[in-house]
Amino acid sequence: MTETASAPIGIFDSGVGGLTVMNAIIDRLPHENLIYLGDTARVPYGNRGAETIRRYALNAASLLSTHQIKALVVACNTASAFALDVLRQQLSIPVFGVIQPVARRAADYSETGEIAVLGTRGTIRSNAYQRELLNLQPDLNVHPIACPLLVPLAEEGWLSGSVTDQVLARYLQPLSSTEVDTVILGCTHYPILRDAITGVADGLATPKTTLLDSAKATADAVADSLAETDLLRDDDEPVGSHRFLLTDVPDGFVDTAELFFGRTLDGPCEHVDITDTTPLASPTTSS
Amino acid sequence: MTETASAPIGIFDSGVGGLTVMNAIIDRLPHENLIYLGDTARVPYGNRGAETIRRYALNAASLLSTHQIKALVVACNTASAFALDVLRQQLSIPVFGVIQPVARRAADYSETGEIAVLGTRGTIRSNAYQRELLNLQPDLNVHPIACPLLVPLAEEGWLSGSVTDQVLARYLQPLSSTEVDTVILGCTHYPILRDAITGVADGLATPKTTLLDSAKATADAVADSLAETDLLRDDDEPVGSHRFLLTDVPDGFVDTAELFFGRTLDGPCEHVDITDTTPLASPTTSS
Repeated sequence: MTETASAPIGIFDSGVGGLTVMNAIIDRLPHENLIYLGDTARVPYGNRGAETIRRYALNAASLLSTHQIKALVVACNTASAFALDVLRQQLSIPVFGVIQPVARRAADYSETGEIAVLGTRGTIRSNAYQRELLNLQPDLNVHPIACPLLVPLAEEGWLSGSVTDQVLARYLQPLSSTEVDTVILGCTHYPILRDAITGVADGLATPKTTLLDSAKATADAVADSLAETDLLRDDDEPVGSHRFLLTDVPDGFVDTAELFFGRTLDGPCEHVDITDTTPLASPTTSS
Repeated sequence: MTETASAPIGIFDSGVGGLTVMNAIIDRLPHENLIYLGDTARVPYGNRGAETIRRYALNAASLLSTHQIKALVVACNTASAFALDVLRQQLSIPVFGVIQPVARRAADYSETGEIAVLGTRGTIRSNAYQRELLNLQPDLNVHPIACPLLVPLAEEGWLSGSVTDQVLARYLQPLSSTEVDTVILGCTHYPILRDAITGVADGLATPKTTLLDSAKATADAVADSLAETDLLRDDDEPVGSHRFLLTDVPDGFVDTAELFFGRTLDGPCEHVDITDTTPLASPTTSS
C-alpha cells in the first residue's frame, strides 16, 4: 500500500444530501477514511449563477486539500454540473462527480432508449445529465423533469402519503405518454423518496421503470478507479474513520443529516470557516 | 425637507421574498427612492446559525450604508429575528424589522386572544413572534406553526389547487381545536398564498380568521416613523426611483422576482459582491 493510499477521500456537497453518496461509499469501501465537507452556510447551490458555483466548489476543494485527501468526490449535482472541469484542472488528484457514473449505468440499462431525469430546477437547466447521456449514446430519448418541491418534501420527512404522491403525480405526468423504462434520480436528496417515486412512476410509464440513483453508481466508480491506480487502503486495515466538516451547524442538523446518511453520524462534526478568498492550496500529489 | 430626507431607504432581504415588503412600501410611500438588496448568493438564511445570520445582516447593512440610506428596512424574518439588535447598535439610522409591526397589529386585532403564527422552521424556532406577542400582551394564546413547504410552493407558483390545499390542511390542522381568529403570515413569501391559506383556515378555526401579513404593517410603521422625524420626501417631489442590488442573479430571476414584487421590476438590477470581510461603513448620520 502506498503512502497516498492511506490518505482520506474527501467528499464535498453543498449541504447534507451528499451524505447519501457517503453512505454508499462506506458500504462499498468500509476501510477508507472519509472526510465530508457540507457547505451548509451557503446551501443550496442550485439557484446560484455558474461563476458563483465554480468559486464555491474551488473554496471547498481548497479546504479539503489541506487535509491531504487522495481523491475528491463532488457529491453535489450542481457542482458536478458546473465545476468538475475547473476542479480537475486545479487538482492533481482524481476528482469524481455524481453525474457521469449514473448516466453511464442508465445508458447501459435502458432497453427502450427512453430515460427520464428528475432533478432540481438548477440541475435540469444545466442540461448536464442530458449532455452526458447523449454523449454516451446519441440516439437516446431523454426526458428531463424539474422537481423543485422534492428536496423540501424530503427534508420535511414527508416520504410517503397523499401530498407526496400528488406532487409526484404532477411532476411525473409527462411520463405517461412515453416508453421510459429508466429513471435517473438526479439529486442526492431523492433516494430517500425512492419508494414513493417508484409507486407513482410504475403507474404511469408503459414498461415497469427502474430507478437509478447516483449514490451507488458513484461509489462503484470511485472504488473501481482507485483500485486500478492502487490508491485503496488494504482490506486488512481497520475500518475507516469518518469526519464531518460543516460551514454552518444549524439547529436540528443531526436529525436531518442522519435521515440522509441512513446511519448514525459516526465521527466528529466540526464547524469550519470557508471564505471566498481562500486560495487553492497546493494539490496533493501521488507519491 | 432636510438633506437626509431626500436620501433613499434601504430594504434588505436574503432573497426575493422581501419584494412583497417593498411593494407595500411603494404603495404607501410612492415618492421615496428605494434601494433593494437581495442576498441571493446566500439565500436562504432560515436554516443558518444565529452568528452566521448576524454576520450576513451586518454585511448587507454595510453595503447599503455606502449608498447613504436614511433608513434600513430588514425585510427578512430571519434577519429581523436574530440581527435587529446588532444592526440598531451599529447603525445610527432608523432600522425597521418585519416582526414587531405585524405582531402589534395582531395583538390589537384579536378578540379571542388566540393568534396563530405561520413561518419557516427557522422563524418559528427563533420564537421571535411568540416573544414579541407575549411582550405586548402576556395573556395571549399563541400557536406557532412551522410550514417549511410553503416557500417552495410559492416559488413554484403553485398558488392554488389540491396539492397546495392538502399541504395547508396538514399544517393548519392544529387550528381546528382552537379559537384562533388572527393568523400572522410570518414569512415574506406567504402573502402570495393568501387566498389558499384563507380558504383552508376558514374551514378549520371556529371563528372566521383574519390573515395579517408583515408587508403592509411594516410599510405603515416605516411611513409613520419617518413622518414623525421629518425624514420623508415631500409629496410634490417626483415619483421615487427604485434600484435592485443582487449578490447573485440566477436564471429565471426576473419571473420569480415579479411574482413577489407584484409589479414589473421598474429599475436597474445590478449584481453586487458582498463578502464576509466587508467592514461596516461609517453609518449615515442625520444632518
